[in-house]
Amino acid sequence: MYIQQLIAKLGTEKVSRNETELFRHSHDESPHIPVEPDVVCFPTCREDVKAILEIAKMNQIPVTAFGAGSGLEGQAIPIKKGISMNFENMNKVLDFSPDDMLITVQPGITRMQLNKIINRHGLMFPIDPGADATIGGMVATNASGTTAVRYGSMRDQLLDLEVVVADGTVIHTGTRAKKSSSGYHLTGLFAGSEGTLGIITEITLRLHGIPEHTMMATCTFNTLELCGIAAQSILQSGILVMKMELLDAMSISEVNQYYNYNFPVKHSLFLEFAGSKSAVEEEVKIVAEIMKDLGAEDWQVASDPTKQREIWKARHELCYVFLHQNGIDEVGADVCVPISKVPNLVEYARKLIDESGLKGGIWGHIGDGNFHTLIVFHPKIAEEREIAEGINEKLAIRAIEEGGTCTGEHGVGIGKIKYQEKEHGDALSIMKNIKQLLDPMGLLNPGKIFR
Amino acid sequence: MYIQQLIAKLGTEKVSRNETELFRHSHDESPHIPVEPDVVCFPTCREDVKAILEIAKMNQIPVTAFGAGSGLEGQAIPIKKGISMNFENMNKVLDFSPDDMLITVQPGITRMQLNKIINRHGLMFPIDPGADATIGGMVATNASGTTAVRYGSMRDQLLDLEVVVADGTVIHTGTRAKKSSSGYHLTGLFAGSEGTLGIITEITLRLHGIPEHTMMATCTFNTLELCGIAAQSILQSGILVMKMELLDAMSISEVNQYYNYNFPVKHSLFLEFAGSKSAVEEEVKIVAEIMKDLGAEDWQVASDPTKQREIWKARHELCYVFLHQNGIDEVGADVCVPISKVPNLVEYARKLIDESGLKGGIWGHIGDGNFHTLIVFHPKIAEEREIAEGINEKLAIRAIEEGGTCTGEHGVGIGKIKYQEKEHGDALSIMKNIKQLLDPMGLLNPGKIFR
Repeated sequence: MYIQQLIAKLGTEKVSRNETELFRHSHDESPHIPVEPDVVCFPTCREDVKAILEIAKMNQIPVTAFGAGSGLEGQAIPIKKGISMNFENMNKVLDFSPDDMLITVQPGITRMQLNKIINRHGLMFPIDPGADATIGGMVATNASGTTAVRYGSMRDQLLDLEVVVADGTVIHTGTRAKKSSSGYHLTGLFAGSEGTLGIITEITLRLHGIPEHTMMATCTFNTLELCGIAAQSILQSGILVMKMELLDAMSISEVNQYYNYNFPVKHSLFLEFAGSKSAVEEEVKIVAEIMKDLGAEDWQVASDPTKQREIWKARHELCYVFLHQNGIDEVGADVCVPISKVPNLVEYARKLIDESGLKGGIWGHIGDGNFHTLIVFHPKIAEEREIAEGINEKLAIRAIEEGGTCTGEHGVGIGKIKYQEKEHGDALSIMKNIKQLLDPMGLLNPGKIFR
Repeated sequence: MYIQQLIAKLGTEKVSRNETELFRHSHDESPHIPVEPDVVCFPTCREDVKAILEIAKMNQIPVTAFGAGSGLEGQAIPIKKGISMNFENMNKVLDFSPDDMLITVQPGITRMQLNKIINRHGLMFPIDPGADATIGGMVATNASGTTAVRYGSMRDQLLDLEVVVADGTVIHTGTRAKKSSSGYHLTGLFAGSEGTLGIITEITLRLHGIPEHTMMATCTFNTLELCGIAAQSILQSGILVMKMELLDAMSISEVNQYYNYNFPVKHSLFLEFAGSKSAVEEEVKIVAEIMKDLGAEDWQVASDPTKQREIWKARHELCYVFLHQNGIDEVGADVCVPISKVPNLVEYARKLIDESGLKGGIWGHIGDGNFHTLIVFHPKIAEEREIAEGINEKLAIRAIEEGGTCTGEHGVGIGKIKYQEKEHGDALSIMKNIKQLLDPMGLLNPGKIFR
């Protein structure tokens, strides 16, 4: 019945029950169990989103937003079925003000589409979670990635969101001013809420100038602990690097093997520096000294853009090299802790993986204290999945006990629900009450963040 | 009756009805009408705060938090009387981790007390609203000031807050990890809520390294519009200045006269650069070129720390020079707009003041698009007050219409309530609902932010 209402309101071209579409909207890039929606809607404007939410409310149908499907915690999986709302036709730039270094976009634009438009003006949107995610999806999970060490997470880039809340009201959470002390900070509340509090229809982002010059450096250490200490020392030097990534020896070995690279098979740091030429050169010199004092080996500097791109390509391919065998599955952690806790925690992660007999790598945004493990297993061997998930769980719990979080950037979705109580304690009831307040019928992405 | 309960629970030394104390807690630095509380409490720990809130709840007594009393919108004035909660005995450092560049403090510590403790470790807390405000008060109003152009506002410095909510529950809003995608962003919600949603009892702040080298530069322009354009050009150059302040000719003239300075009596920019020596020197050179191309005059560079301190002293004294006559009163705007709107808006502000026949200056954090006016009047001449407040109102409304906010850093308090509907539209009902959810009896700082 409600599907007929959707078609009557939006037209057939915006409503699909095609099997391929239902399948495409049943999963993201995570190992969470796929669930097909009953119908997929393709809104093109705020009014479409409003109409969909009104029909959903009238018929008590769940609504789950879908961006690029690149999520890693199942946020876009419509586990209670109902409507999947796909934003690929809401990918326009609504207002671009290079003078203000601001842009207002619809949520379906991807970060690469966005950068293509703004790069020619000397501006960039630096947040890079790896995948070519949509900006809406990145806001919804408070995504970050390699450049967060310099620019922060998605939440830090937002000036204003237009949100349609469950009852169909359209609100703006902020203004176009760079800062404000007016009213409660709803922008921060909707960012990272994973589509559980409202549907985002417009996003005003702060943009950044493209640095004049970049240089890369790579080096290796004998222990993971030393990598952690090295990261801490760079942060303390006050040098604001562009990227600071850890890759453990196992990861290097896999990426070398699969893509024919020649990186030294040791625990490695990949660093990027950006700014004016002379500042960058000075920074590289200072960091080289710090690294060598800590026992770094294989110090290599790359100024050539082609060489730099190749190194970062290797880093980004990491997520896929462990999965090249057909039918293999993986689980991954996304812990984030104070930087002083990193050296012990990465050693602990390596020990757990080594002892498990499974294959797994460790890498991540060590400058933020955020790192990932990726452990592969044969999905048909139940014991292997259990072991892999057990490691994941041990790391999440240890991270929370060390004053950190179970998820630095992937979000809660389905997989991190079980740690919410431990991490947030009594604050969790307040979060649940806010959910209840804004979505009293529980129709917005049900089954995510909370049980 | 409840005062007896407070004394029984906290002891006489933490509860005062002394006339001097009642008067001290009746006002802040704003021109809003003072109201004395019925009693002042001086908690020393979280348990005291809990006890006070429980007694307040039982007896339905309003509770208003009081930091240093340096607020500019009357947030600390207990307009419904009841309890004023003063944090001067909750000013301890609870945990300091220089390795993580993190510190956890009680809300009553002032920013100068804090810096004194951390500076010797090569670290600083850069947010500087001028006054030696308490960190708790700065969180509550989302304060910022001269360095926001580089470091952002208070909200951007927060990793975790401990908050006692109205029903006495103690929550933590975050963790000690630098970033997180776990759960709703309650940290951002409580920051800037002006004590209307809960009482903050612990604050975990990110700290920053003290830059190796700083340099200052000052220059003048023939029009305020050109000052705005110059600010925009510096931002677009990608150079991350430490401070970027506007002072109009009238302000310069007043500060020269009152403190015997010798600044050229023209619209001026005061700039500070910070970083490694060579980077700073390069940046100063680049900005000098940009400024001269735009017609800047009187370009002066100061590398000597004493000279730099003297210039910033003059800037900070501005807020007081207009008030040196006995019995004079003032109103001030705190608008913040996208940077491209600044040139027109500062010209508009100057025109309004000139036409009014009143004396007033314009200055502020032009790099954020945030500036203040200060207009003085004789409180006994009702017409003057009306004119001054009319200018304030015109600027606030124009700022909102230009996509900005009525308050960039002072907060809503009493004075900006009347603009909340215009600025936030339907989002205001959601804010009110959140207030109702967290403080159903309306006991926490009643009469602020909302009517």
